[in-house]
Amino acid sequence: MRRMPENEAEHETRPGEIAVALPARFDAGIYFIGSIRTPWQSRADCPKNGRGSQEICSIELFEPYAAALAGIEAFSHLVVVYFMDRARRDLVVQVPRHLGEPRGTFALRSPVRPNPIALSVVRLLKVEGSRLSVAGLDCLDRTPLVDLKPYYASVDSAGADPP
Amino acid sequence: MRRMPENEAEHETRPGEIAVALPARFDAGIYFIGSIRTPWQSRADCPKNGRGSQEICSIELFEPYAAALAGIEAFSHLVVVYFMDRARRDLVVQVPRHLGEPRGTFALRSPVRPNPIALSVVRLLKVEGSRLSVAGLDCLDRTPLVDLKPYYASVDSAGADPP
Repeated sequence: MRRMPENEAEHETRPGEIAVALPARFDAGIYFIGSIRTPWQSRADCPKNGRGSQEICSIELFEPYAAALAGIEAFSHLVVVYFMDRARRDLVVQVPRHLGEPRGTFALRSPVRPNPIALSVVRLLKVEGSRLSVAGLDCLDRTPLVDLKPYYASVDSAGADPP
Repeated sequence: MRRMPENEAEHETRPGEIAVALPARFDAGIYFIGSIRTPWQSRADCPKNGRGSQEICSIELFEPYAAALAGIEAFSHLVVVYFMDRARRDLVVQVPRHLGEPRGTFALRSPVRPNPIALSVVRLLKVEGSRLSVAGLDCLDRTPLVDLKPYYASVDSAGADPP
């Protein structure tokens, strides 16, 4: 498998950041199964922090995956898994602007990570054929969709932990 | 990019299930960044339902990713993202044994899905070099690790939704 095309404009490394050489080949592949439509065309537009936004966004499934939505209307919330295809992947230590000091990539929710896969818990508002309406996303318009799962508070929330 | 090797033994389709032809090529690639060590060697051994298990499991990061753990000890819980590399990927409608009737893949948490990426919220118990000790996993031993993220109740839990 070939390496992803990279966005050279984002390859400025700040003092304290550590970039590594990524492997020459990928270990597995993913299919983009749909597209997420949001009002945000640039990172600067996207909602910051917290629970994303209450803006209503849509998720459009590509064929042949629409059939896999059968029964999804029974759930109030979903986990949306998507691919942040504009993020660089080679930083193991980053200096986020809001922190101003170095921190490991796995201690951050930054899009910049070896596998730029993101998760959002959303409220499911409507299902119409191959399209879902949801609230709670904060990603760029036309972000590639990777997976949808029903949200279960008992497994997806840390609140159910035993004392 | 080539298609993944598939486990032919799992390719029996039950009545009511719908298999589709997957695209000939992947849209993006992922790196396996570590390995999850658990006590479970077969699916029958893995904990069922609920919050996985309180068994202590370990997550071992491969080089050069261990540096990306810097600062992770500050978090009580993590989201572990992993790849279920033994699952078939072509079913859009499935008949899980516990349901006995067909349901769309995106309305299920089954490992069988176009992109077999799983999430677990775990308690972080210890960090030692490139190895984490955690509780709350339910996956097979030697499952490939894809990502680690700090868990934030405000974004990862549906409980914080406005009324």
